[in-house]
Amino acid sequence: MRVLGVDPGLTRCGVGVVEGVAGRPLTMVGVGVVRTPPDAELGHRLVAVEQGIEQWLDEHRPEFVAVERVFSQHNVQTVMGTAQASAVAMLCAARRGIPVALHTPSEVKAAVTGSGRADKAQVGAMVTRLLRLSAPPKPADAADALALAICHIWRAPAQNRLQQAVALHAANATKGRTA
Amino acid sequence: MRVLGVDPGLTRCGVGVVEGVAGRPLTMVGVGVVRTPPDAELGHRLVAVEQGIEQWLDEHRPEFVAVERVFSQHNVQTVMGTAQASAVAMLCAARRGIPVALHTPSEVKAAVTGSGRADKAQVGAMVTRLLRLSAPPKPADAADALALAICHIWRAPAQNRLQQAVALHAANATKGRTA
Repeated sequence: MRVLGVDPGLTRCGVGVVEGVAGRPLTMVGVGVVRTPPDAELGHRLVAVEQGIEQWLDEHRPEFVAVERVFSQHNVQTVMGTAQASAVAMLCAARRGIPVALHTPSEVKAAVTGSGRADKAQVGAMVTRLLRLSAPPKPADAADALALAICHIWRAPAQNRLQQAVALHAANATKGRTA
Repeated sequence: MRVLGVDPGLTRCGVGVVEGVAGRPLTMVGVGVVRTPPDAELGHRLVAVEQGIEQWLDEHRPEFVAVERVFSQHNVQTVMGTAQASAVAMLCAARRGIPVALHTPSEVKAAVTGSGRADKAQVGAMVTRLLRLSAPPKPADAADALALAICHIWRAPAQNRLQQAVALHAANATKGRTA
């Protein structure tokens, strides 16, 4: 199972691709950050996020996309940007027929650290360990994107198997290759 | 000046095209609602909004797109959907190089009724009168989209003239026609 995790944001949108199945060691396929200039017009920033996500989808052909579920109890301005960036990520995936899953920050933290209230350093440390990296991915948005992908692989219940088979079949039919 | 107003929403996204300049009678070019099924997956709903907005841009070739600015003081779930739908509308416009403007609900109400606290019926009545329609557009989202377009035409300051000339030039260069 190859999953693209997206930690949505307009200034920094974390992206990370992880491959593997629950119960087996996982592999990091790629990690990075899609950045857009804070002083650019909102419309142009959204276009830049779209182009960045499209590149990651083109290059890594994930079978699933896991996006952080946005809540609005935080800073108003940040939340709007996060919601808008997450909309673009979901749109890009859905347009290709890739199943999109949303996971809350606490679900992600609980999945990789055992605690839904773990801090960023703890998440970074566990991502580093679980993916057998030499150092924690920087910035935190990149590590969070990997954590989202790991969370999705581990949380994927048995009933996802059918959905996965359908997605794989569609990917093969469209692209003539398996990721 | 031809403006597409967008009252963003996932269930009902109001769209209205108005043509004219400040100080002269305005003309309604088209009005409608892009709907997506509430029980569909979020990613698919965003794709449906994108397809709907694209159709309106293709058909009416607006020089400007005016989108309602989303605030997060309202119902959390609704605001997220509104922010996501508005992101898709802004993305579609920016991708084509069409300038996007955001107007707050009170700016729109003040523009068309003289009061920033006017109710929906008052906005509908003024939109009907200003565009010389036989009846208020239904649903309210459609009327709000027209009000947004009117607001944009009336608020467009002199310094927008350059931006408009650039947009017209780009539209002519791309499409070989003027809307």
